[in-house]
Amino acid sequence: MSFKTLPVVEEILSANDRIALENRKLLQGYGILAVNVMASPGAGKTSLILRTIEALRGRLRVGVIEGDVAGRVDADKVAETGTPVVQINTGGGCHLDALQVQNALKKLPLDEMDLLFIENVGNLICPTGFALGEQLNMVIANVPEGHDKPIKYPGIFAVVDVLVLNKIDLMPYLDFDLTAFRTAIRALNAGAPLFEVSCKTGEGLPAWVDWLAEHSHPLDVGP
Amino acid sequence: MSFKTLPVVEEILSANDRIALENRKLLQGYGILAVNVMASPGAGKTSLILRTIEALRGRLRVGVIEGDVAGRVDADKVAETGTPVVQINTGGGCHLDALQVQNALKKLPLDEMDLLFIENVGNLICPTGFALGEQLNMVIANVPEGHDKPIKYPGIFAVVDVLVLNKIDLMPYLDFDLTAFRTAIRALNAGAPLFEVSCKTGEGLPAWVDWLAEHSHPLDVGP
Repeated sequence: MSFKTLPVVEEILSANDRIALENRKLLQGYGILAVNVMASPGAGKTSLILRTIEALRGRLRVGVIEGDVAGRVDADKVAETGTPVVQINTGGGCHLDALQVQNALKKLPLDEMDLLFIENVGNLICPTGFALGEQLNMVIANVPEGHDKPIKYPGIFAVVDVLVLNKIDLMPYLDFDLTAFRTAIRALNAGAPLFEVSCKTGEGLPAWVDWLAEHSHPLDVGP
Repeated sequence: MSFKTLPVVEEILSANDRIALENRKLLQGYGILAVNVMASPGAGKTSLILRTIEALRGRLRVGVIEGDVAGRVDADKVAETGTPVVQINTGGGCHLDALQVQNALKKLPLDEMDLLFIENVGNLICPTGFALGEQLNMVIANVPEGHDKPIKYPGIFAVVDVLVLNKIDLMPYLDFDLTAFRTAIRALNAGAPLFEVSCKTGEGLPAWVDWLAEHSHPLDVGP
């Protein structure tokens, strides 16, 4: 037989896509909106999830999958709120994949959830290549990392459905050019809404939470 | 023939290692200390390089290789200082590799350099797997990304030769636990020096610059 590399690579990719589709169908069957939360390390992914859980209490029931290379710092924080959470450790992997999410879904009470946050590994590059079964892809940029990130990492900013700029409370202490940031975003992604927030002070969060709640499914959709 | 995946993977890895070794020998022949600068997006890699170039003026001659997924924002900033610089765009790749560096080295005036900064793609995971020809591996952590990064991304903190914690001027505005950060670092990496700095105010930079100058080679070593 001849040695062919490309078909093998394609097969691996479509295996992930196939499982992602299964996840997506499973989640849709339960009426769960799944959000793939992507960002640099330390952008505030867990902080935004925690703030959103708090704001949605009584409105929507949330579940969380936490992806990290190592540790369960974030899962512990989420668990403290009483929210169902599963930690995935990639052990060096730079993104989550659909099979990891599929295994995590088996441990979550899907019939008691309306919204699922899948917190990806902190990385602005690799996660975009792997569908997980989400309906919404989002990226959280943050003020201290600088306004030039869309120019340096265009791929992720181009493909997401919604963007959040976090840590706007630090604007007075940093040389962040908000106009340049917005312009760079719009050059890559004309349509996705951009929410400018501070998970510390709470500024800007209501608009984000309302938008998310509007895009989620009604409480009473069962499998 | 039987289909064997593993040997192919090993061959690819050793091709990078082989080129990295060539780069290393070339740089050593010129008496150049090469530093692989790794960090999250927006940690301050370029800011630290610019500050260090400024502080070393008249002491050491610096060259820079800038690695980004896209754009040449950083290379332009370095070029403004009169420092030789080459931009590598990975076009989606999540780390630099030795071949990209080898091609960049051909465009730098090696006989007029004592120190080479290779600024890797902003990523705390993938760059550690690919030697470039460097003698020193460093990671720049930063205060806004939080003190838990060594726990979440242990690989990079464990392997580096030197660590910098940047943006300490923002400490008053954030809940950064410096003791927890130092403890986590020391659990992973007992020996590497840690410099706590602010590229904005300049605090802590002289100790870093002096340490680097001590580890570099004398000016008059030729090929």
